[in-house]
Amino acid sequence: MSSRTEEKFRVGVAGYGYWGPNLARNISAREDCIVSGICDLDPARLAIAATVFPEAVITESFSTLLEIPDLDAVVISTPVASHFELAKAALVAGKDVLVEKPLARSSDEARTLIRLAEKKSLILAVDHTFLFTGAVAKIKQILDEGELGNILYFDSVRVNLGLFQPDTNVIWDLAPHDLSIINSLVGLTPTLVSAVGTCHAESGFVDVAYVHMKYESGLAAHLHLNWLSPVKLRRMLISGSRKMIVYDDMEPSEKVKVYDSGVSVKKIVDADSVHKRLVDYRIGDMTAPKLDTSEALFVEINDFIRALTERKPPKVDGLAGLDVVRVLEAADESLSCNGKWVPVF
Amino acid sequence: MSSRTEEKFRVGVAGYGYWGPNLARNISAREDCIVSGICDLDPARLAIAATVFPEAVITESFSTLLEIPDLDAVVISTPVASHFELAKAALVAGKDVLVEKPLARSSDEARTLIRLAEKKSLILAVDHTFLFTGAVAKIKQILDEGELGNILYFDSVRVNLGLFQPDTNVIWDLAPHDLSIINSLVGLTPTLVSAVGTCHAESGFVDVAYVHMKYESGLAAHLHLNWLSPVKLRRMLISGSRKMIVYDDMEPSEKVKVYDSGVSVKKIVDADSVHKRLVDYRIGDMTAPKLDTSEALFVEINDFIRALTERKPPKVDGLAGLDVVRVLEAADESLSCNGKWVPVF
Amino acid sequence: MSSRTEEKFRVGVAGYGYWGPNLARNISAREDCIVSGICDLDPARLAIAATVFPEAVITESFSTLLEIPDLDAVVISTPVASHFELAKAALVAGKDVLVEKPLARSSDEARTLIRLAEKKSLILAVDHTFLFTGAVAKIKQILDEGELGNILYFDSVRVNLGLFQPDTNVIWDLAPHDLSIINSLVGLTPTLVSAVGTCHAESGFVDVAYVHMKYESGLAAHLHLNWLSPVKLRRMLISGSRKMIVYDDMEPSEKVKVYDSGVSVKKIVDADSVHKRLVDYRIGDMTAPKLDTSEALFVEINDFIRALTERKPPKVDGLAGLDVVRVLEAADESLSCNGKWVPVF
Amino acid sequence: MSSRTEEKFRVGVAGYGYWGPNLARNISAREDCIVSGICDLDPARLAIAATVFPEAVITESFSTLLEIPDLDAVVISTPVASHFELAKAALVAGKDVLVEKPLARSSDEARTLIRLAEKKSLILAVDHTFLFTGAVAKIKQILDEGELGNILYFDSVRVNLGLFQPDTNVIWDLAPHDLSIINSLVGLTPTLVSAVGTCHAESGFVDVAYVHMKYESGLAAHLHLNWLSPVKLRRMLISGSRKMIVYDDMEPSEKVKVYDSGVSVKKIVDADSVHKRLVDYRIGDMTAPKLDTSEALFVEINDFIRALTERKPPKVDGLAGLDVVRVLEAADESLSCNGKWVPVF
Repeated sequence: MSSRTEEKFRVGVAGYGYWGPNLARNISAREDCIVSGICDLDPARLAIAATVFPEAVITESFSTLLEIPDLDAVVISTPVASHFELAKAALVAGKDVLVEKPLARSSDEARTLIRLAEKKSLILAVDHTFLFTGAVAKIKQILDEGELGNILYFDSVRVNLGLFQPDTNVIWDLAPHDLSIINSLVGLTPTLVSAVGTCHAESGFVDVAYVHMKYESGLAAHLHLNWLSPVKLRRMLISGSRKMIVYDDMEPSEKVKVYDSGVSVKKIVDADSVHKRLVDYRIGDMTAPKLDTSEALFVEINDFIRALTERKPPKVDGLAGLDVVRVLEAADESLSCNGKWVPVF
Repeated sequence: MSSRTEEKFRVGVAGYGYWGPNLARNISAREDCIVSGICDLDPARLAIAATVFPEAVITESFSTLLEIPDLDAVVISTPVASHFELAKAALVAGKDVLVEKPLARSSDEARTLIRLAEKKSLILAVDHTFLFTGAVAKIKQILDEGELGNILYFDSVRVNLGLFQPDTNVIWDLAPHDLSIINSLVGLTPTLVSAVGTCHAESGFVDVAYVHMKYESGLAAHLHLNWLSPVKLRRMLISGSRKMIVYDDMEPSEKVKVYDSGVSVKKIVDADSVHKRLVDYRIGDMTAPKLDTSEALFVEINDFIRALTERKPPKVDGLAGLDVVRVLEAADESLSCNGKWVPVF
Repeated sequence: MSSRTEEKFRVGVAGYGYWGPNLARNISAREDCIVSGICDLDPARLAIAATVFPEAVITESFSTLLEIPDLDAVVISTPVASHFELAKAALVAGKDVLVEKPLARSSDEARTLIRLAEKKSLILAVDHTFLFTGAVAKIKQILDEGELGNILYFDSVRVNLGLFQPDTNVIWDLAPHDLSIINSLVGLTPTLVSAVGTCHAESGFVDVAYVHMKYESGLAAHLHLNWLSPVKLRRMLISGSRKMIVYDDMEPSEKVKVYDSGVSVKKIVDADSVHKRLVDYRIGDMTAPKLDTSEALFVEINDFIRALTERKPPKVDGLAGLDVVRVLEAADESLSCNGKWVPVF
Repeated sequence: MSSRTEEKFRVGVAGYGYWGPNLARNISAREDCIVSGICDLDPARLAIAATVFPEAVITESFSTLLEIPDLDAVVISTPVASHFELAKAALVAGKDVLVEKPLARSSDEARTLIRLAEKKSLILAVDHTFLFTGAVAKIKQILDEGELGNILYFDSVRVNLGLFQPDTNVIWDLAPHDLSIINSLVGLTPTLVSAVGTCHAESGFVDVAYVHMKYESGLAAHLHLNWLSPVKLRRMLISGSRKMIVYDDMEPSEKVKVYDSGVSVKKIVDADSVHKRLVDYRIGDMTAPKLDTSEALFVEINDFIRALTERKPPKVDGLAGLDVVRVLEAADESLSCNGKWVPVF
């Protein structure tokens, strides 16, 4: 091993299915990082990994990955059910960890990981990739500057055909994106959740779901999550008292549109006329701000490496991951109670 | 009055606000019909009516309208709160009636109107205009031919900014369109309804609402109704086991798209691989069938006149109107109970 | 005739086919105007006219129209071939005139009409409706304020299937819209025109055409005009040195988009690297300004009546009409010479 | 070198700028291929190449690349000006060659390469990538089956902002895509070309251009090529006597739409009515066929390797490359003669 290599961050990748290769590619794109090892249970995936990373340790065993000499960190992109065990083992072995969303199967698991990382002064980051997109960064800037006035509601549609997950329902698969975005934008987590869903494909898992959320501020949010839609839609409406936003992730270039439109109340006491409107609305210009087009995952990896270097929290830490899992947990309970409002603990 | 005029159907129009002029225009477009009178409470509207229909009786009084000699029928496009009283008076006066949606404020009112019309052998039609569009007619044909297989769900988004109604919430304003369409397409009414909503504009009425519906067949339907959206959306997803439909009423020409896409279950018992999918999906051609572009309201007026001539039920009769009101009523009860599932009586 | 009616502008409508009813409707929508007479060669169209305007003189004879007592003005929406004769007769009879585009079949005809109107101090307006749309008004404002920098080119696509005209080619049918818009926006007429076209439908008239235009300022414009396109497109690109505009008339609400994008030259002398770019470009925000949504034809009729009242020129006068005809004439000559550049006289 | 590696096709990549990495990636994705060497004049690009292909020869010298032992083939993705010299040297050295479009700067150069490859029985393939897309393959199938009837015209718009090439005008940069597609679809090359263009960015190269083409069959084609458009458009209209196609490469999934629409002539001799139409049109269903979504470049590399293995011509051979260059050459001559029709030799 050359001295130049010894100075690099040595990262292991657990899980080389759909997302793992993207993580590995972005890690190796940094001059100061090296993908030291890759593990996966599927030999076919490992064969591909070996071609792309001929110098990395390629193994079916996560333990072997952890034993790579001088390994600094592990990124975990395995099925959700294994997140907890793998992340825990990595932390126990003294490695910094980046875990794909959602952080764990339960808030108990998530809390255990957070405590373990704290105790060992290790970095625990969660891969909420959308928070690193130019689109969400721009929306956050607009909201932080108060341009929208009071935020009235979020409405998100995240639907497509297929890409069924084998071990989870559509809420656990798709909602982490919306939850992490909304949590980040408003700096709050919902206090009450209601979820209804149906299971059409006989996989045993809910594949069409609707989630309502209430916040202490009076804010409401609604998610439509669906694996059975003929078309792929990724659209969030954010309505404010002064302006409104449409964030359409399927648009090739104008993903964020800010509408200088709003609603105001006119109190007209005019009992004679049934045609009088009590409410007035205003429609103005629309602006699609220029967005940073950097690859979100690369920005995220940069933040992870910064956290490793500075020994300071990553932008999306274990608590952010926990906040998402808490809502997923409440949604599952509500699902099984036919949409009952469930408090988020 | 010339003999030629005496042979025409003589129709009175009650309410000359937003929709009344369209009704009047389509009635007068038939050679065998004449708009004999128009009433409205607003003198400004009456002045306009007088310009367009210089030979019609123009009055603020509905009684005066009913007293027009030889009046055959009345079309009512006034605010919802007055539908019942006006329709009842017209039926009592022996006139055939077409009432704008929704038929009445309550199912009791609707049932009273239906019984009255039956007793007097009068036509009672309800203005569910969308059922007369080329788009809905084509979708119904496709569903009736079984092309979609089992229907899995309906998901409808009907949102825009403004057009607040002064005397009703967003559900009563917008949902009648969806309910009449879905009822007509599946030949069923829902048995359980859950609705949640919020009131942002301080008008006292819910302006953003979500309605879930369950049917005995296992079918689920979901509506997003919203007066506070920065963009106007009118889109319904209809998912079937064999094909799927997207009905987008904002598209200028290709409003109905039929996707030869579906989902099938593969039962794979392969405990070793966590990556195995249990569900498979299929994506095929998309077809946008040619649609009849006749103006829906003209087709509807033709059907109403046919009913008058043949003394047979109109395509959308009082029962169809009642079926919509029953769901609206249940939705209102659910709204006030925080989304509780309410049976549709 | 009541005194109230006598104070109104009395307008005759010649031609009640596709466009005439729109003119008549907008004239009668003004309180100070009355449609006094309507003529058309087609008895079926006259029958419809009689229903809508029961008090107007309905005739097949243009002479009869002109003889209506106290007639103030005539609007002409007949086929192009008859514009000259009818407009001339109306001016000779002392009537103010509004002529549908294009003003006449030749620049000689157009010049004769202009001279006649001048001599008799009559208003001669040309119906270039697009100049009265909120979209074109907004674009003109943006250009007049210099926001785009130097205008580099116009590129317009105006295509659809069908609506073949019986007595003219696709250039005379569709290009007047583009020519009137561009002339108005830049305050210039082209000096050289080249046009190529093909005739596929065996109607004897060119149905797909491309027109290039050069201006003294160095500006270039290009039109794609087509009756044989499977889709309807109405899109104009306007490129400036500082900003760029896309004007898409098929968009329901955001018809005008202003891109804060541009191109700048970097003079890099670096013979070693073949990859060096000499030109740099900049992509910024996009803004879709709010547009006035008034019906263009109503705005235009208002301007026509203003001209009649003040005895001052209308916004679009005979010279503006002539400027369009001059280009059409040159395009026809170029068409017959296989695309030769023809000067515009 | 292991025996396993010796059995692989050994390919050298010349040019590792924008397109070269894609070629290299797709070559290495085949199990039977290895990227044996990469050359580029830019050391920064070579450094990146070294990271991705640690086992390859990395060099600034094309000669060094050709000297790699047992090298089978070379793919060339350098600026156009160097295509001829590099391809010639590779063929002289006995290597099979794939050259990025356009094949060469002149038809003389292209013919020299074709003759040299023939003489030495080597494969000369040209990288017209679009011919390997699912979209173009589907369109070709539809045309070959005669579904469109007689093809009336092609109209292509290929515009965007920026990506200026340093050593060529916009026609040489963008038109090869359209020319290769149209040539392939109709099995003909144009006989006459007319091109006009303007140079706004002071780079010395035409950056907005329009190209007309005529074919012996009477077919016409028109291209709009533009580096100065605020929006990226990639749309081709193909009009047939029976059906029409819109191929929009910017659409995420429905890139090809087949319209069952057409035009027919009605010969009506009716001198009395100026409103009679001589032409009728028909609008029917639209179908967006499912497309193969394989990466076009991978399909192309597979065809190249097949050609190498079977020693049979590739799908896109030197003659196909020449046919494109011949039109580009004629377009350049026309450009310099103000749009004169120039024969294609």
